[in-house]
Amino acid sequence: MRPILLNCLGTDPIEYIKQQVKVQNPHLITMEEDILYHFSLGTKTHNLPEMFGDIKFVCVGGSANRMKAFAQFIHQELGLPGNRDEISDVCEGTDRYSMYKVGPVLSISHGMGVPSISIMLHEMIKLLHHAHCHDVVLFRLGTSGGVGLAPGTVVITDKAVDYSFRAQYEQVVLGKVITRNTQLDDGIANELLQCSSELQDFPTVIGNTMCTHDFYEGQGRLDGALCSFSLEEKLEYLRKAHEAGVRNIEMESTVFAAMCAICDLKAAVICVTLLNRLDGDQITTPHDVLVEYQQRPQVLVAHFIKKRLGYLPTPPALTLEH
Amino acid sequence: MRPILLNCLGTDPIEYIKQQVKVQNPHLITMEEDILYHFSLGTKTHNLPEMFGDIKFVCVGGSANRMKAFAQFIHQELGLPGNRDEISDVCEGTDRYSMYKVGPVLSISHGMGVPSISIMLHEMIKLLHHAHCHDVVLFRLGTSGGVGLAPGTVVITDKAVDYSFRAQYEQVVLGKVITRNTQLDDGIANELLQCSSELQDFPTVIGNTMCTHDFYEGQGRLDGALCSFSLEEKLEYLRKAHEAGVRNIEMESTVFAAMCAICDLKAAVICVTLLNRLDGDQITTPHDVLVEYQQRPQVLVAHFIKKRLGYLPTPPALTLEH
Repeated sequence: MRPILLNCLGTDPIEYIKQQVKVQNPHLITMEEDILYHFSLGTKTHNLPEMFGDIKFVCVGGSANRMKAFAQFIHQELGLPGNRDEISDVCEGTDRYSMYKVGPVLSISHGMGVPSISIMLHEMIKLLHHAHCHDVVLFRLGTSGGVGLAPGTVVITDKAVDYSFRAQYEQVVLGKVITRNTQLDDGIANELLQCSSELQDFPTVIGNTMCTHDFYEGQGRLDGALCSFSLEEKLEYLRKAHEAGVRNIEMESTVFAAMCAICDLKAAVICVTLLNRLDGDQITTPHDVLVEYQQRPQVLVAHFIKKRLGYLPTPPALTLEH
Repeated sequence: MRPILLNCLGTDPIEYIKQQVKVQNPHLITMEEDILYHFSLGTKTHNLPEMFGDIKFVCVGGSANRMKAFAQFIHQELGLPGNRDEISDVCEGTDRYSMYKVGPVLSISHGMGVPSISIMLHEMIKLLHHAHCHDVVLFRLGTSGGVGLAPGTVVITDKAVDYSFRAQYEQVVLGKVITRNTQLDDGIANELLQCSSELQDFPTVIGNTMCTHDFYEGQGRLDGALCSFSLEEKLEYLRKAHEAGVRNIEMESTVFAAMCAICDLKAAVICVTLLNRLDGDQITTPHDVLVEYQQRPQVLVAHFIKKRLGYLPTPPALTLEH
């Protein structure tokens, strides 16, 4: 019996189950060269398929030091050859972002805030596209303020919401505001929660993450250079956020979710909470405790990657009957 | 004859002409300690008046490498003692921002985009306040896309405008959007233009600067991972911007202007254009030319600082007749 035709896309049957990284820009194909300016990489100056074609996991986070530490950690966890202290920055030609490649894992810093991560996402998605990557999963590993959670709790984002607790991202395109949805991948989120229950190292919850464009007034902090509201008004806002399912606050999740959704990239946001915002605004936790907190999303994602690589290997190529 | 009473503020006549750095937050005075988290500095752990009390000029820019280079350049220009290659990062305890102090000049990096510079501005203004600084002038030295200008032109910002060419900044406070004006200091802008005409090194104009929250779709680029518009639609938007007086586009000016205005800080934005956006989107200029372009705002501001320090010294203390 002739099996169901699996091969709709090309001569290689395995192509069917490959999820290519898509860009949503008809102009790109007409360009002779694409310079990824903020990465200091380009399609004419670098062989992107050779450099990045095997990438399966992209992990991004705000701090360059932290993403270097994650690259070294995942190098050790995957038992890769070579000295983990000699992993070099792929973007050494610029100081806008740092990028480290460790086997099938790419670790990139994105700075703070939506505009900063958005530039990185545009260039990273184009990079994966030019490199012909497929079946890639993205993670944002971050720090955040918790809402009603003990400091050190890891929050896996259910919905990324804006300052009004709406699961949407407002993007300006040629002077007009359009709205994009911020749906993340439920399957990946649940798989991460399962990883946490296997690790039993730290508390982990799934909850909504509020993304603001400002650390002080936008998050209701009383300790900025500007503050026009009272403690009670602040707490009322945070309580409303909590009622809307918000469990943590950071500054990048909505655009991360929106851009990954448009490009059909499976993605998750995993942030540790450094403090409980219902108790205060300043981060007074000792440095060594903060360092351990910041490793928690890394430990969780490393476990996920190891499971995916070890327990769920790429299925063997299907053989069609003729 | 008894002279006009100059001393309205205290026992020291000179106090009258001092412009203290103000915070607009009644809660700050109640705090026992203020941790400037993203600078890795604090009021209990550091003697801020001793470290920063003599600051008169704060220069900020996106790139950490560029702001280090500026610190070394101004060190040389002011003929200060010590080795300029040994200037160390005051914020070495964190990788969020870099900060270099060179005599009365503070050079700080702020990353990319409004949220990133806004965190830095909150903590920098608090730093200047805690350090009892006065008569401080702020400069943002940046790169930008030009609109109808030859690449390499320096734009001194008249009005910082948003994506609709309005001279305003929208700030979310506890879930509500408020609007702030983005007035910069005309006197400083004209003084900078005068400096440029003295230097005669590169073309300089005063014009409006559009601040966007996105480098690709928000600025009408055709080369991002996402693009839903045509070349003609892009050019129409940029032409409208030009008609509204916009001469360059960057990503930080509105919040910089708004926060400085609220805190009564004299401020200016000086950005070089790396390309003419009416001609294209990608930055294809050779690296060494770009490096020279990026030095232009530094050269201009260094000249301003030297003039202020050399030609307009602080007036001697006034002696009151009794």
